Amino acid sequence: MLRNVRTTRIEWCDCDPAGIIFYPRYFEIFDTGTTALFERALGMSKIAYLKAYDFAGHPVVETRARFRQPTRFGDDISIETTLVECGESTFKLEHRVSKGGALAVEGFETRVWLTRDAAEPRHVHRQPIPKEVIARFAQAATEQAAVEHAGTAT
Amino acid sequence: MLRNVRTTRIEWCDCDPAGIIFYPRYFEIFDTGTTALFERALGMSKIAYLKAYDFAGHPVVETRARFRQPTRFGDDISIETTLVECGESTFKLEHRVSKGGALAVEGFETRVWLTRDAAEPRHVHRQPIPKEVIARFAQAATEQAAVEHAGTAT
Amino acid sequence: MLRNVRTTRIEWCDCDPAGIIFYPRYFEIFDTGTTALFERALGMSKIAYLKAYDFAGHPVVETRARFRQPTRFGDDISIETTLVECGESTFKLEHRVSKGGALAVEGFETRVWLTRDAAEPRHVHRQPIPKEVIARFAQAATEQAAVEHAGTAT
Amino acid sequence: MLRNVRTTRIEWCDCDPAGIIFYPRYFEIFDTGTTALFERALGMSKIAYLKAYDFAGHPVVETRARFRQPTRFGDDISIETTLVECGESTFKLEHRVSKGGALAVEGFETRVWLTRDAAEPRHVHRQPIPKEVIARFAQAATEQAAVEHAGTAT
Repeated sequence: MLRNVRTTRIEWCDCDPAGIIFYPRYFEIFDTGTTALFERALGMSKIAYLKAYDFAGHPVVETRARFRQPTRFGDDISIETTLVECGESTFKLEHRVSKGGALAVEGFETRVWLTRDAAEPRHVHRQPIPKEVIARFAQAATEQAAVEHAGTAT
Repeated sequence: MLRNVRTTRIEWCDCDPAGIIFYPRYFEIFDTGTTALFERALGMSKIAYLKAYDFAGHPVVETRARFRQPTRFGDDISIETTLVECGESTFKLEHRVSKGGALAVEGFETRVWLTRDAAEPRHVHRQPIPKEVIARFAQAATEQAAVEHAGTAT
Repeated sequence: MLRNVRTTRIEWCDCDPAGIIFYPRYFEIFDTGTTALFERALGMSKIAYLKAYDFAGHPVVETRARFRQPTRFGDDISIETTLVECGESTFKLEHRVSKGGALAVEGFETRVWLTRDAAEPRHVHRQPIPKEVIARFAQAATEQAAVEHAGTAT
Repeated sequence: MLRNVRTTRIEWCDCDPAGIIFYPRYFEIFDTGTTALFERALGMSKIAYLKAYDFAGHPVVETRARFRQPTRFGDDISIETTLVECGESTFKLEHRVSKGGALAVEGFETRVWLTRDAAEPRHVHRQPIPKEVIARFAQAATEQAAVEHAGTAT
C-alpha cells in the first residue's frame, strides 16, 4: 500500500472563534495529502500529470472523518496518506493526522477520474482510471515495500 | 425532527481549477446550515446563544458526505438541515444539498457541546448538552411538526 | 458610474480566533461583488459571460483596503460595488461594506482581462478589454443613471 | 529593519477556475508571514505571545497589494516579510513574494494592537503597543543587523 507523509503547521487563518482548527480545513489538508501521494506515484507535479494524462482532476465522491482531538494555531502536524485501494474506476485513500505523536484526525475518501468533454471543456465526466496510471501506482507501492523491507532487514 | 432550509449561491471563490466546487467548501456550507438550525431552535443568533449558555461551540466529532453531482460557480443551491437525534451529549444532523430540485450532496455529522476551562479560557472540554437546550430543541421540533401538520390538513 | 449592491451575512467560518472576520475574507466578498456587477452589466451569469467572450477571468492586479470597524459572525452586511473607471485595458472598482448603515470597510481594485493561450490553455495572458464589453458597461451605466434620475425626479 | 523569510507551496485548494491562485489567498500568506516575524522577534509562538501580553491579536487596518505575475498550484514561493516601522500604536509591514527568484507579489500592511474588554471578552479595542514589545522588536532588528553585517564583513 503506497504511503506518503507530509508535515504542516496549523495557522491562525485555519482556526475559528473557538480558537481551534475549523474542521473543513482538514479536508483541504487531506486533498493536499492526496496530491502529494499522486505526485510521488506518478513522478511528476499535479500540473504536469493533469496534462500528461489529459484529465480534469480526481475529485472526492465520498468522504468520512473522525476528529479525535482538536489542533490549534502553531501546532505542527503530520499527515500520513495511504492508498488503500486502486480499483478500475475508484481510488480509496486514508489520512491519519498526528500531533506530537498522538492521533488527532482520521480521514477516509473515495475518488474518481474526471475528464473534460472535448466539445465543451466546461463539462466534466467520470472515466475509468487509465491502465497506465493503475500500473504506476502498483509499481510505486512495490518499490516502497521493497525499500521498507530492506530498511527493516538492516 | 427539527428542520431548516437555506439557499445560497456557489461563487467563483468556492471553485477549483477543475471549474467545480472545491469539496471542503461543502463542510463550510454544512456548518452554516447547522448554525441556522440552532439559531432557529434557540431563538437567538449564534453570538447570543454562545453567550447565553456560556460555551465555546458545537464542533463536529465525526462527519461523512456523498457528492452525487458537482456544482459550479453561479449555481443556486438549497440546503436542508435536519436534526435527526439530540442525545445527552451529542447532536446528529443531516444536510441535503439540492440544485434545481435534484440532490447534489448528502452530509451527516455528529456534534458535541464544548465549554471553556474557567482557569484557562484557551482550553476547551466536551460537556453534556444542557437540559434546557435539549428541551428547546424538542419544543421547536414539536412546534414545527404542528405547523406542518396544519399545513397538510388544510 | 455603474453600481450594484449585495447583502450577505458574516458566518462563523469567516471569523478567526479573535472572534472577528479574518480580513482576507473581505477580498472574497469584493470578488463576489465584482462578479455581481459584471453579471448585471453583461446581462448573464459569470459562467455564461466567460464563455460568450471566451476569456479566463478578470483578475485583480492591484488592490487596497481600509478596515474601519470589525464585523463578527451573525453580522448582516451590505456591499456597494461601483465601477469607477473602465479603460482600454483595466477596470477600476470600489467596494463599500456597511454594517447597520455605518461604513465598515472600503476596498479599491484594478482588474484586467485575461485570455487563454489557444495552443496551451493552461497559459493565460492579459488582453485589451473587448470594445463590445466596454460599450455594454457604458450602456448599463447610462441606463442606471436614467432610472436613478427618474427616481429622484419623482 | 527586522526581516523573516518563509517558503510555502501554492496548492490546488488555493487556486480558482482560471487555474491560478485566487488572490485573497495571498492575504492569508501575508498574515502567516507576519505571525512568523512576530514569533521570531518575541521568541515564542503566537499562542504563547497572545497569552504573555494578554491581547487579542494584531489585526490589519489598512493593506495594499500588487500582483505582478500569477502563481499556480505546485509553485514553490518565498515570502520575505519586513517590519518597516514600529510606531507607538501601529506596525507597518511589507511582504515580497517571489517565484523562481522573480518578484510575483508585493504586499503592504498597517496593523494595530487589539485587547479584549475585561468585562465583556467578546468586545475588542485598539491599544498602544506595549513598550516592552516595541523594545523587543528594536532589539531583534539590531541583533539581525549585527549578524548580517558580520556575514557581509567576512
